[in-house]
Amino acid sequence: MLKRVDVRFLKQPEEVGLEKPVFIEGLPGIGHVGKLVADHLVKELKAEKVVEIYSHHFPPQVMVNEDGTIRLPKNEVYAYKSKGDSPDLLILVGDFQSMNGEGHFELVNAYIEVAKKFGAVRIYTLGGYGVGKLVEEPYVIGAANSLKLVEELKSYGVRIERGEPSGGIIGASGLLLGVSQLEGIEAACLMGVTSGYMVDPKSAKAVLEVLMKMLNLKVSVEALDERAKEMERLIAQIKEMQEAAMQQWKSDEDLRYFR
Amino acid sequence: MLKRVDVRFLKQPEEVGLEKPVFIEGLPGIGHVGKLVADHLVKELKAEKVVEIYSHHFPPQVMVNEDGTIRLPKNEVYAYKSKGDSPDLLILVGDFQSMNGEGHFELVNAYIEVAKKFGAVRIYTLGGYGVGKLVEEPYVIGAANSLKLVEELKSYGVRIERGEPSGGIIGASGLLLGVSQLEGIEAACLMGVTSGYMVDPKSAKAVLEVLMKMLNLKVSVEALDERAKEMERLIAQIKEMQEAAMQQWKSDEDLRYFR
Amino acid sequence: MLKRVDVRFLKQPEEVGLEKPVFIEGLPGIGHVGKLVADHLVKELKAEKVVEIYSHHFPPQVMVNEDGTIRLPKNEVYAYKSKGDSPDLLILVGDFQSMNGEGHFELVNAYIEVAKKFGAVRIYTLGGYGVGKLVEEPYVIGAANSLKLVEELKSYGVRIERGEPSGGIIGASGLLLGVSQLEGIEAACLMGVTSGYMVDPKSAKAVLEVLMKMLNLKVSVEALDERAKEMERLIAQIKEMQEAAMQQWKSDEDLRYFR
Amino acid sequence: MLKRVDVRFLKQPEEVGLEKPVFIEGLPGIGHVGKLVADHLVKELKAEKVVEIYSHHFPPQVMVNEDGTIRLPKNEVYAYKSKGDSPDLLILVGDFQSMNGEGHFELVNAYIEVAKKFGAVRIYTLGGYGVGKLVEEPYVIGAANSLKLVEELKSYGVRIERGEPSGGIIGASGLLLGVSQLEGIEAACLMGVTSGYMVDPKSAKAVLEVLMKMLNLKVSVEALDERAKEMERLIAQIKEMQEAAMQQWKSDEDLRYFR
Repeated sequence: MLKRVDVRFLKQPEEVGLEKPVFIEGLPGIGHVGKLVADHLVKELKAEKVVEIYSHHFPPQVMVNEDGTIRLPKNEVYAYKSKGDSPDLLILVGDFQSMNGEGHFELVNAYIEVAKKFGAVRIYTLGGYGVGKLVEEPYVIGAANSLKLVEELKSYGVRIERGEPSGGIIGASGLLLGVSQLEGIEAACLMGVTSGYMVDPKSAKAVLEVLMKMLNLKVSVEALDERAKEMERLIAQIKEMQEAAMQQWKSDEDLRYFR
Repeated sequence: MLKRVDVRFLKQPEEVGLEKPVFIEGLPGIGHVGKLVADHLVKELKAEKVVEIYSHHFPPQVMVNEDGTIRLPKNEVYAYKSKGDSPDLLILVGDFQSMNGEGHFELVNAYIEVAKKFGAVRIYTLGGYGVGKLVEEPYVIGAANSLKLVEELKSYGVRIERGEPSGGIIGASGLLLGVSQLEGIEAACLMGVTSGYMVDPKSAKAVLEVLMKMLNLKVSVEALDERAKEMERLIAQIKEMQEAAMQQWKSDEDLRYFR
Repeated sequence: MLKRVDVRFLKQPEEVGLEKPVFIEGLPGIGHVGKLVADHLVKELKAEKVVEIYSHHFPPQVMVNEDGTIRLPKNEVYAYKSKGDSPDLLILVGDFQSMNGEGHFELVNAYIEVAKKFGAVRIYTLGGYGVGKLVEEPYVIGAANSLKLVEELKSYGVRIERGEPSGGIIGASGLLLGVSQLEGIEAACLMGVTSGYMVDPKSAKAVLEVLMKMLNLKVSVEALDERAKEMERLIAQIKEMQEAAMQQWKSDEDLRYFR
Repeated sequence: MLKRVDVRFLKQPEEVGLEKPVFIEGLPGIGHVGKLVADHLVKELKAEKVVEIYSHHFPPQVMVNEDGTIRLPKNEVYAYKSKGDSPDLLILVGDFQSMNGEGHFELVNAYIEVAKKFGAVRIYTLGGYGVGKLVEEPYVIGAANSLKLVEELKSYGVRIERGEPSGGIIGASGLLLGVSQLEGIEAACLMGVTSGYMVDPKSAKAVLEVLMKMLNLKVSVEALDERAKEMERLIAQIKEMQEAAMQQWKSDEDLRYFR
């Protein structure tokens, strides 16, 4: 039996023993910026999976793995017990967000319940801020659920742009800030500026760098760098092809003159 | 945890101490007429916020304020303790109406529960009546959930047009009348005639003036006047630009003759 | 407070004192055939309203009456205590059917609950069967939830067409048959053949005539006849206008020849 | 009263007395491949209906039978008590899958509950894998909810294609694998490759043949063969008509030359 929102603890919070963890959300969204950062953190920190979340609000299907096995769409929470000066972490990653409006609220309720059970003291949500054109030098804009935290974001170089994103922050990244505001938990959203047209590891790297500063945490960014370079080669190829096509079209136009 | 419809009392009704208040609804809708009037009243009367309503039926997002802080979509009820001959007031304002049909009914149930807890004796809902063309001299049409109240509306100059709006009154403004009819609470809807194409402070002013008469209440209309003038300047500009474009097009047509 | 499906008894079944009533459904649908018949019966028989049904599955609005008062969308059940040889009747009429799939099932559950509380022994659902072209001589096709009842329909001149309507019987008219089949209540659907393009009182009359025979009931059909004649005048007018337009177009075509 | 998901046992599991049955799902889907196989098995094995499942998630209608009787959309589970070396079977067939995402999850919960009540030890789901072009020699691809079962599929000639279907397995065929994975029940999906454009008995036969080997079961495939031949005649006819139309079009083109 799968419940409407089905939160399954693989380990109890007291077993995991995190101390005042920071909760980080990186689910799929614009440019997959948040997802790239959160997945990267889980991998680099070798964080341990502690919660699985299934839901009737995810697509009614299974995905097929390379080896022919299948898996249900799910969200997962990973725990990282800090070895240094950085705080302990809980990292929320996953395949999908809710397929419908009400589901977003129900899932965010579940995320916050998990955060509270682990004693989380702060929430960072990660996402992309789509600007509809290629971004050469991505930067990070932010928003938070308290003015104090807005100021803190600024001190780390996060830009606060008057009322931006003007369309609001949609989905889990936004609602986590809103609902935790009512619960008295500090929460901020970091958004990497991105075209919004494709997966953007370069923007993800910009977000990761801010996040590392804020968390006093050091992880390798190599894997993201690698993917960013790949992406740039791909974009260069596309541009070249477009230019070639344009040239061809122009010479056709010229020829038309003589027909 | 945010409930499906989440009504949060900031002050208990007995603390607020309203006597037989009139409940006024002004949520977003056609020409934002109702919202303009209700927001204006809250501001001019310096009414006090007493209830916040959150819901899974609002869009799954947060809005970003100018200072970088965020807020959840919500509806709010303000209380005004009368100093003169006008009745005490409860004023319902907010960011959104429900995104789906069932949500409208659930939210209206909540609004009426609030009204009853405060002992409201009458409900006025405010809205726009879109006619699809610019309206030079906006007037106010009405409907009510009892014939006695229809007659009362007429005595204040509100027009009753046979079966209008023919498409019915949609959303909270309509359902509040319908559900309170079953509950035995008198309720009327005041609709400012408007084009329906843009925010219409002039139509809002017409509604406000009727409402003030009905409530025996006096507030400054200056702010609405200001916005109405701004809007008219804007419309004049648009008209001018359209005429210029038309002229240009005509002279192009003339020239075409010589080609 | 309006419940998701809100059934309100104006009179208790024992007060009304029907004996083994037949339950007749005539809600809006194809050609409004069922609605025309059921509304007509309520009026001619001066049946008494005994139940009102409100629902979150109806459109979130109120309708405005001619006199400026409003009313919530609702379904109603009327009771008719027979004076002659016909059975007692319960007649379900209303403004709307459900706006969504699940709502249809929830409402039909409520209708059947009402039918059972009044001790109904049989259900007739009325509707139109759209054939996509004008129908000169409408007839009635039928379906039922038992073979015995199918045979009975045939004996009253109702046509049974192999597997028709091939798309099934949609909405309350169909589901009432299906759910009552599981409850062991006999139920049949009478469908007047109609174009499906407009309200069709002629088709309604055909259904009414069959129904009267089946119920051993006699009511005036004058009002339906009147509306049918009106409709025919309207159709004749439309045809004339179409022909005139066609002539005009042809003569324009001819003139074009000389240009 | 019909419940949202309404599971009705016609016989209790202990009455039926199946021993460690295999549960087979064949609901409507791509090319109706799964449905064709499961319906065929029910017929050939003269399996006994033991469960009916109704739901608010099916279309709000009834279907009309040839004889004028009606039936509600439903799913059914049939039981087959083996006489030989094959395992006992439970076979899920039906008219529809859920009309909405959440309904898929609720129905799959019900299917698994039924499977567990009968003590099912394994689940096979059957479907089609649409490739968007005519398939001359259909074969069967598979996926499973454990690596061990994937290997077993391979040993029966089922192809495992890396991560295919890349869009996942949608609906009951997929979710049954996913949810039973969490419940610790082994489950595999067999998909007959098909165009996806029409009902495909040839692809169904390919799936049936694999399934028979896996179940150590022998049933006649004649009926499917018959339908496959019919289908091929139909496709040949369509091709011929297309070619004729093409010829006609070409000769029209040629004539145009002379006009």
